Amino acid sequence: MNVTQKIIAAHLVSGEMVAGGEIGLRIDQTLTQDATGTMAYLQFEAMGVDRVRTDLSVSYVDHNTLQMGFRNSDDHRFLRTVAQKYGVVFSPPGTGICHQLHLENFAKPGATLVGSDSHTPTAGGIGSLAMGAGGLSVALAMAGEPYFIAMPKVIKVQLEGKLTGWASAKDVILHLLGLLTVKGGVGKVFEYAGPGVATLSVPERAVITNMGAELGATTSLFPSDDKTRQFLAAMGREADWKELVADAGAAYDDVIVIDLSKLEPLAAQPHMPDRVVSVRELAGKKVDQVAIGSCTNSSYADMKSVAGLFGAAKVCPETDTLISPGSKQVLKMLAREGLVEPLLDAGARLLECSCGPCIGMGGSPVSAGVSVRTFNRNFEGRSGTKDADVYLVSPLTAAMVAIRGEFTDPATWGEAPAVPELPADVPSIRDLFIFPPADGSGVEVLRGPNIVPLEKFDGFGDSVTAQVLLKAGDDITTDHIMPAGAQITALRSNVPAISEHVFSRVDEGFVARAKACDNGIIVAGENYGQGSSREHAALAPRHLGVRAVIAKSLARIHRANLVNFGILPLILEDKADYDRFALGGKVTVPVAAVTAGGSVEITLEGAGSVAVKNDLTQKELDIIRAGGLLNYVRLSKTGAA
Amino acid sequence: MNVTQKIIAAHLVSGEMVAGGEIGLRIDQTLTQDATGTMAYLQFEAMGVDRVRTDLSVSYVDHNTLQMGFRNSDDHRFLRTVAQKYGVVFSPPGTGICHQLHLENFAKPGATLVGSDSHTPTAGGIGSLAMGAGGLSVALAMAGEPYFIAMPKVIKVQLEGKLTGWASAKDVILHLLGLLTVKGGVGKVFEYAGPGVATLSVPERAVITNMGAELGATTSLFPSDDKTRQFLAAMGREADWKELVADAGAAYDDVIVIDLSKLEPLAAQPHMPDRVVSVRELAGKKVDQVAIGSCTNSSYADMKSVAGLFGAAKVCPETDTLISPGSKQVLKMLAREGLVEPLLDAGARLLECSCGPCIGMGGSPVSAGVSVRTFNRNFEGRSGTKDADVYLVSPLTAAMVAIRGEFTDPATWGEAPAVPELPADVPSIRDLFIFPPADGSGVEVLRGPNIVPLEKFDGFGDSVTAQVLLKAGDDITTDHIMPAGAQITALRSNVPAISEHVFSRVDEGFVARAKACDNGIIVAGENYGQGSSREHAALAPRHLGVRAVIAKSLARIHRANLVNFGILPLILEDKADYDRFALGGKVTVPVAAVTAGGSVEITLEGAGSVAVKNDLTQKELDIIRAGGLLNYVRLSKTGAA
Repeated sequence: MNVTQKIIAAHLVSGEMVAGGEIGLRIDQTLTQDATGTMAYLQFEAMGVDRVRTDLSVSYVDHNTLQMGFRNSDDHRFLRTVAQKYGVVFSPPGTGICHQLHLENFAKPGATLVGSDSHTPTAGGIGSLAMGAGGLSVALAMAGEPYFIAMPKVIKVQLEGKLTGWASAKDVILHLLGLLTVKGGVGKVFEYAGPGVATLSVPERAVITNMGAELGATTSLFPSDDKTRQFLAAMGREADWKELVADAGAAYDDVIVIDLSKLEPLAAQPHMPDRVVSVRELAGKKVDQVAIGSCTNSSYADMKSVAGLFGAAKVCPETDTLISPGSKQVLKMLAREGLVEPLLDAGARLLECSCGPCIGMGGSPVSAGVSVRTFNRNFEGRSGTKDADVYLVSPLTAAMVAIRGEFTDPATWGEAPAVPELPADVPSIRDLFIFPPADGSGVEVLRGPNIVPLEKFDGFGDSVTAQVLLKAGDDITTDHIMPAGAQITALRSNVPAISEHVFSRVDEGFVARAKACDNGIIVAGENYGQGSSREHAALAPRHLGVRAVIAKSLARIHRANLVNFGILPLILEDKADYDRFALGGKVTVPVAAVTAGGSVEITLEGAGSVAVKNDLTQKELDIIRAGGLLNYVRLSKTGAA
Repeated sequence: MNVTQKIIAAHLVSGEMVAGGEIGLRIDQTLTQDATGTMAYLQFEAMGVDRVRTDLSVSYVDHNTLQMGFRNSDDHRFLRTVAQKYGVVFSPPGTGICHQLHLENFAKPGATLVGSDSHTPTAGGIGSLAMGAGGLSVALAMAGEPYFIAMPKVIKVQLEGKLTGWASAKDVILHLLGLLTVKGGVGKVFEYAGPGVATLSVPERAVITNMGAELGATTSLFPSDDKTRQFLAAMGREADWKELVADAGAAYDDVIVIDLSKLEPLAAQPHMPDRVVSVRELAGKKVDQVAIGSCTNSSYADMKSVAGLFGAAKVCPETDTLISPGSKQVLKMLAREGLVEPLLDAGARLLECSCGPCIGMGGSPVSAGVSVRTFNRNFEGRSGTKDADVYLVSPLTAAMVAIRGEFTDPATWGEAPAVPELPADVPSIRDLFIFPPADGSGVEVLRGPNIVPLEKFDGFGDSVTAQVLLKAGDDITTDHIMPAGAQITALRSNVPAISEHVFSRVDEGFVARAKACDNGIIVAGENYGQGSSREHAALAPRHLGVRAVIAKSLARIHRANLVNFGILPLILEDKADYDRFALGGKVTVPVAAVTAGGSVEITLEGAGSVAVKNDLTQKELDIIRAGGLLNYVRLSKTGAA
């Protein structure tokens, strides 16, 4: 068996390991972050379970730590107290970024992890089977329910050779994105293997698995080997190590070979992570902003590399340079080694340990500006500046861009530095987490006025007639559907309020149109709902009356979120039929005639019919008919939704 | 002569040094911050001057450094390029807080400084005559014009003894605020003297002069003595030192004696800095948030004291603790001495070196929360949370509150630490400023779409009839008139857009009412316009058609801003007449009959007449009649407004 199969086999509670079939997995660990977590814990509370039933559940606050107004601060307090009550470890704002912290403190080889953040696969760098999911799926996992996915195909990524010169782990995944595109990983796990694996440290591996999310993959993972043991030992967690490698001759669904020694510094161009070119080709492009950090590239080694390159150099005065370390552990190590000073001396700005500019929480580029970031996403407008051009690069490339104020040819950068090793004595920040009491029953959960109780949605009758509210193009992200930023994210606990912002960056008339009709439908192109796992991209449209999405294809996590909130995800049999839908047109879906995995004709008022299929399991169809997963769970427990 | 008189005499270009009379002062230095600076530089540009004519002008970015969206980032770029063009030193975002940086790098004993920030008197700690002003006044000073004020009364604050136990510099000024109230300093300079002066370091003195702004004072200052020399020497600026002390037997308008040895830790209660009680009396009050920093208390000594108290202690998990160092110099010293780690280890959050939560840029308390801050203002809603209770205290008190999670009696705190001395080798951060080229004529000033050209306002005819748009109570602050926060502050370069927020926290109907009528008037109680120097509190109401303010009394800087933007500041002869004005009522002011310092009858439609006076000079009256200072300057240069 390969590593993926081994972990799945050890956690399988239903289904068979046949690609495409539904499997249920026992979940060892969960994580949430604040932007998705408030809703996840509201949902968990609604399930009536006394205490989480996982080995470990952690609630991180990293996305919106700015506390612009009471809503965000109230959310943090809610998360702290609800964690105490239900047995969840709480990571306060400023402690660091969930994936970096989880890797340092909790992730385990061979464990299953479900997180309400699409970059949860970061923990695949340590050999965990780590998947991003909607908050409701995570809430169910916390309640001890299995996590259901389609059994993925397992793709072997055979790493040959080792990185040389200025190429770094980031360039491995950028190379793969250029090769496979943001749709290339749907239904797949990317399992890294080959002699190149041993040349990469766990944080480097985590960069690669983190950004596997941009391939649309179910997850990515590395084997657990001696490098893994060394990392865990440095974190004071050698006991969490176990070896986990593929059996000799293990079968894979496909193989991709990457020769690490042939890679060079790469950059993803605006506005997709798969628009990859070599940095060399961008030489001469002036850069207004450099941002270093995020769950992709905020490790000790990343930051130390940057500090080393800055050395006595200064960042270009015209290039605003922002640095967000990934965790207090990272920042403590930098401080101990005298590496905070070179960052400050260079003129860089030191921000709080958090997601920060990556999620549009400040650090927006200037109008029509060029921003170079070590992050994982460069979707249009995600930075907070709609007309900005965002490039994704490694920390080494980012540092050189900051110093020069423009892209330059790496051939002019001189000798590349080695990847820094962890120091012998890595400080623990374990006591900065707030661990829950053994019995949380006496804890009062504190809520603010913006934390609104959950809404109960209607299920479906035999058929539904709905108006086309939007005809969206290809590669629409959940950032397009439900934008982030401090103001909007502060409304994550208040669905009616946040729903006012649905599609606000794409079509300002969307909300008004949705409110003006009873039922709505969204027609979309390929890969609808890629990107962030935020379930508000399903929940808020559902609040506005959206009952179905008809797309050429759908991204995995968003498709699951649509199911969870009772929105029918339908796929065009003939992609050309996309053109037959008109904005404002009425569509009738014969819901009673929809069968799991079957095809059905839907009626376009005055325009004939169109065939749509689905890839739903019977259970998913039942969930949708019930009006979503919370109704379904209630129904299965009590017989009444 | 006293110190104040010596500096004034050396800079007097018009008027006589008789309290209350208008004097014009030559200005050596100016400073701006971003929130007021964008408008100040737009105004400077409108004056057609090639280069600043001061000894030194500095443009700091410290208020809104979050860059939530392009507007704020564009403002920063505008400020950087306009500074380059006109010969202004630029301090990029993240370098630190203007007053802390100015004290460390530029402030000089005996120099005059005008800054578009009400806490400019911080530099009084080094013996500078430093005054807060509206941006337009600062722009004029940059253009080489004198700065006009009413010759202040000079109050001697005689300091006896020395601080003991947990009492600190903050408690000196809190004591004075409790004694004199927020109106107690109007028209006055507080000049510190006596044997207690030598017991206080320059940063401690700066805490006191900084918060003299809360007394409504024209400014506060300390003599320049050997302590001043030591501080300047530590900053590598011993050449900037000169001795500056009052002559023996110098006359003062009044004397206040404070025995430092009798002070104890104090706190200003919600929602005014003068609601002072001893910390002892607050024992037992639970605290949700502690915020340490701001231009009042973010020096090296302040931060080191806090780090020392944290030591191996942890902050209470229920008390969110935020720390914003005052400058990169401070942060570098902390990093060098291993003092970043204890802050992190305690569980505190390290924010960027900026004003941060003090100006509502994040760090808003939870709903109905209790927040304890080392800041200078606790006006209702300024924190971003309208129903929060904010207390102002010293860093020592704040640290003890953070550790305990509540106010406790200082008698239980053990032995107080000594005030930390500066290290022998203070690092310079001078090269982080962007100094302007000798010839800036070739520099292109970069603007974003939100940077809107200045509007030209009409002057007055013989009379004006205006509707009462608001009847405001006592102690209305400029935060009430023109709120801050990241979203609103990002509109400071766009007067039409920011005007939509005038009085939004006080009366949501204000803007609609103002737009519905041609001319508006505001009726107010005592001390109208106290607090921040933001001229948008005059400019935006003027944009909305406000032509006059009729108040029981007016705060100094806001009164000057009203003049600058052509709004008539009138004072009720009989305060009881306040009750005769009705919201929505029409008032006719016979503008032609108004004389400088004279009294006039204004007509209330259907309610007789009311006598109002003014304290305007003839020139101020001419400025108002012309429609504001920019019109007046144009008029005096070209003969046509």
